[in-house]
Amino acid sequence: MLIDEGLELLTEAQCWELLASSGVGRVGITIAGLPAILPVNYVQIDGDIVFRTSTGTKLHAATQRAVVAFEVDSYDPDAHEGWSVLLVGRSTNVSEETERADLEGQVSPAWADGNRTEFVRIKPEFISGRRIVAPEL
Amino acid sequence: MLIDEGLELLTEAQCWELLASSGVGRVGITIAGLPAILPVNYVQIDGDIVFRTSTGTKLHAATQRAVVAFEVDSYDPDAHEGWSVLLVGRSTNVSEETERADLEGQVSPAWADGNRTEFVRIKPEFISGRRIVAPEL
Repeated sequence: MLIDEGLELLTEAQCWELLASSGVGRVGITIAGLPAILPVNYVQIDGDIVFRTSTGTKLHAATQRAVVAFEVDSYDPDAHEGWSVLLVGRSTNVSEETERADLEGQVSPAWADGNRTEFVRIKPEFISGRRIVAPEL
Repeated sequence: MLIDEGLELLTEAQCWELLASSGVGRVGITIAGLPAILPVNYVQIDGDIVFRTSTGTKLHAATQRAVVAFEVDSYDPDAHEGWSVLLVGRSTNVSEETERADLEGQVSPAWADGNRTEFVRIKPEFISGRRIVAPEL
């Protein structure tokens, strides 16, 4: 078990398992030169992260062709335990019709109302994860 | 009630109230030119966000003097309801001794083990929040 500043480093396999266990993540993008973090509900498809968005939104614009961060975590505030997974990758708005039709069947609707007909696909280049290790008493 | 793409926009007062109701947030920083999102446990002090870190870590280096994003959210995966608050501000590592001593008493220890003797303080410049509005049936 590797320890990094009191945090247990997870293996890549553990990271993917944790990503599969959740459905809400956060995208780190740049909007007008400023950093932003926005939550999305996502699915994992063929090792990529996919979520819905709408044309005309800041999220859509910022993920056209960008390098973005994507984070998923889970915490127990009482036990002070938890984990987080971070991936960095290239995001694109899916434009190819066959791929769009394919994703339409696989990506569940966004929780929020609104006309979310577009898909953002993130191809991970790095993935890392950490678990909080309770301090030894 | 303002609606932005199926999301209810929160007032600044609502955002601060929600920030006060949680203790885990995520910092959006740049590490070696790449975006990253890292979870921290934080407190709100005089309208600033403060959390602990250690010298020598990437988080410490990336928050020395930077513009960072900070996000807090909460979701109910069954009801498909939730909210998120995003703020953008300047971060600094607190170096002034009186301020450090003051924070030592106010900022609870980090959940993770490790020698977290440094404080990062984010002074917000923008704050915004959204709540998921259930689609009308």
